[in-house]
Amino acid sequence: MADMNNGTDKLKNTIIETFGTPCAVIDMDVVEKNIAKAQSLCCAAGLANRPHIKTHKSPLLAQLQIGAGAKGITCQKLGEAEVMADAGITDILIATNLLGAARSGRLAELQKRLPLKVCADNPVSIAAYSAAAASANRPLDVVIECDTGQLRAGVETPTQALELAKLIQADPQLNFAGLLFYPALDSWPQTQAFYDELKIKLAQLGLTATIVSTGGTPNFINIGKLSGATEHRAGTCIFNDRMMIQAGFAALEDCAYQVYTSVVSRSGAERGIVDAGSKTLTSDTGGLADFGYIIEHPNARLHKFAEEHGFLDLSACNDKPHVGDIVRIIPNHVCVSVNMFDQLVAVRGGEVEQVIPVTARGKLV
Amino acid sequence: MADMNNGTDKLKNTIIETFGTPCAVIDMDVVEKNIAKAQSLCCAAGLANRPHIKTHKSPLLAQLQIGAGAKGITCQKLGEAEVMADAGITDILIATNLLGAARSGRLAELQKRLPLKVCADNPVSIAAYSAAAASANRPLDVVIECDTGQLRAGVETPTQALELAKLIQADPQLNFAGLLFYPALDSWPQTQAFYDELKIKLAQLGLTATIVSTGGTPNFINIGKLSGATEHRAGTCIFNDRMMIQAGFAALEDCAYQVYTSVVSRSGAERGIVDAGSKTLTSDTGGLADFGYIIEHPNARLHKFAEEHGFLDLSACNDKPHVGDIVRIIPNHVCVSVNMFDQLVAVRGGEVEQVIPVTARGKLV
Repeated sequence: MADMNNGTDKLKNTIIETFGTPCAVIDMDVVEKNIAKAQSLCCAAGLANRPHIKTHKSPLLAQLQIGAGAKGITCQKLGEAEVMADAGITDILIATNLLGAARSGRLAELQKRLPLKVCADNPVSIAAYSAAAASANRPLDVVIECDTGQLRAGVETPTQALELAKLIQADPQLNFAGLLFYPALDSWPQTQAFYDELKIKLAQLGLTATIVSTGGTPNFINIGKLSGATEHRAGTCIFNDRMMIQAGFAALEDCAYQVYTSVVSRSGAERGIVDAGSKTLTSDTGGLADFGYIIEHPNARLHKFAEEHGFLDLSACNDKPHVGDIVRIIPNHVCVSVNMFDQLVAVRGGEVEQVIPVTARGKLV
Repeated sequence: MADMNNGTDKLKNTIIETFGTPCAVIDMDVVEKNIAKAQSLCCAAGLANRPHIKTHKSPLLAQLQIGAGAKGITCQKLGEAEVMADAGITDILIATNLLGAARSGRLAELQKRLPLKVCADNPVSIAAYSAAAASANRPLDVVIECDTGQLRAGVETPTQALELAKLIQADPQLNFAGLLFYPALDSWPQTQAFYDELKIKLAQLGLTATIVSTGGTPNFINIGKLSGATEHRAGTCIFNDRMMIQAGFAALEDCAYQVYTSVVSRSGAERGIVDAGSKTLTSDTGGLADFGYIIEHPNARLHKFAEEHGFLDLSACNDKPHVGDIVRIIPNHVCVSVNMFDQLVAVRGGEVEQVIPVTARGKLV
């Protein structure tokens, strides 16, 4: 670390000569610091940590999270859960209505192997889970997803949640396991009111929510504010990105994931092209201006994509990049960029440490 | 086909029970019609057809294109070319500055196996190609990319192109193979002027552009308008999408690619959620409103994405979908959606015919 620039140049050469560009690189020192921070925030709030693996899709990184104290993991796809189960992870919550996987028989197959926790916000999902559990010959734990203002998935009222809890309670194939929340940053008071009302109604049925889960990396600012919560699930915090910087959760040095790209064209005086476009960083702006932050040229604007090209507006750069330069990009939204790569190159102290397969990438069902 | 609706329902059941959702489905009758149309348009203009495989990334579909008369293929990544070479395809143009792959040694490795055509718009790429060709012990054919107003890759003037041609001519490892254009829809006159001026200057060096390539599916409207062109490369036309409908090239029935999704949530009266989000269809709007066309509910607006969820505004739908319904989505931009899937389910006459691997997906270098 005596000479940061030389160390960086050496690593860039190693990356391009070994892997080519574009290349997804994670700094393991930063990854471990980020994992420890999430765990510590959960512990301080008295909550279990159930990281969402949609960000990294890697069993190896999930194992690091569990090794640091996570109780289990959250998945968004059955295919992700299959990959994590293959790696020996046993405490898995799948945080979505899994109709597509349930009706293909794959949910039942995995439920035969280990007891899953699944999620529902409607009777059709519950019926599909019942059939899958019967086929697996093992009851499924079901949590009810509740929406408290985001207008995402989730029932909108405690009464609707209660109706689903009754269906679960009445079904011998299903266990009522709890509640899933994803409050907007400013809707935690409504979430508390929703939960408090529902808790009383559930008690009247003799039901208790063993799991009361909150979610989201930006919501670490609110962690523990829901009285009764038992665990938190956050994904992005393992790597961070421009969105998390914008949310005030992370600084540039907390961004573990960088895409190493080559400047491949400089046909105009004020413009350039890198070899990372919408098939590398994706068109997801995360509500921010432009598509990423270029570490070497903070004033360069990555303002447009072709599929394999990123277009740079260099008009505000005094020091403009040259063709052949390797420039590192911090994406707006890291989860969708990781999802474009089959592997992450893990580095530490300026050296390549290992190649981590993104094993659950592309597991769309 | 006697009862279209029953046939569709049967196929939907087969798809979800066999594969789950979301599922990428292509109708082979439409694919074959689209392949024939592109070939026929090229033939009518007296041009060779060199389809761009970035859209399908499948050797099997590339072979269908070659079987229908295509002279060879266009790739955008070396990794795509590797996959196509593995499948026995020998006439491959890689239409980009390949610095990342050249410097990793992979370009030389593939050039050892078969003679490639590569593309440059700057001296750094040419130097990298020279080194790769020397390492492969086989000269590389290089085409010069020319920009005639799109502000994408490509030199901006005939003089710049000529300077690169001189570098190629002076290098014993390289052969000058021709010129690559991607004119904007309305810049074909400028493209003609660019080419005419350059052709004379090249002749003064004793050089002839054996390949003069135009590109783009929407540019089929202009095909043959560049006097001197020898071939056309187009990708999207094999499947088509909402962008191609918008461009006037295709109608709904020409869209071969549909993503079968499940409606997984209907928590609000005027809203719903399908199990395809930005990790399935991508956030690339292609400049259009919303993210896709829902065949069963044309008035539903797919207006927002989470990573695995697509949010439907149903306020304009009289007949609203129910949880569990399978709805088919034609994406705005098919190339980036295919790129999210490891396989395409090929159907014909309402029956599943085969599963086609998207073998070159994720080949980012």
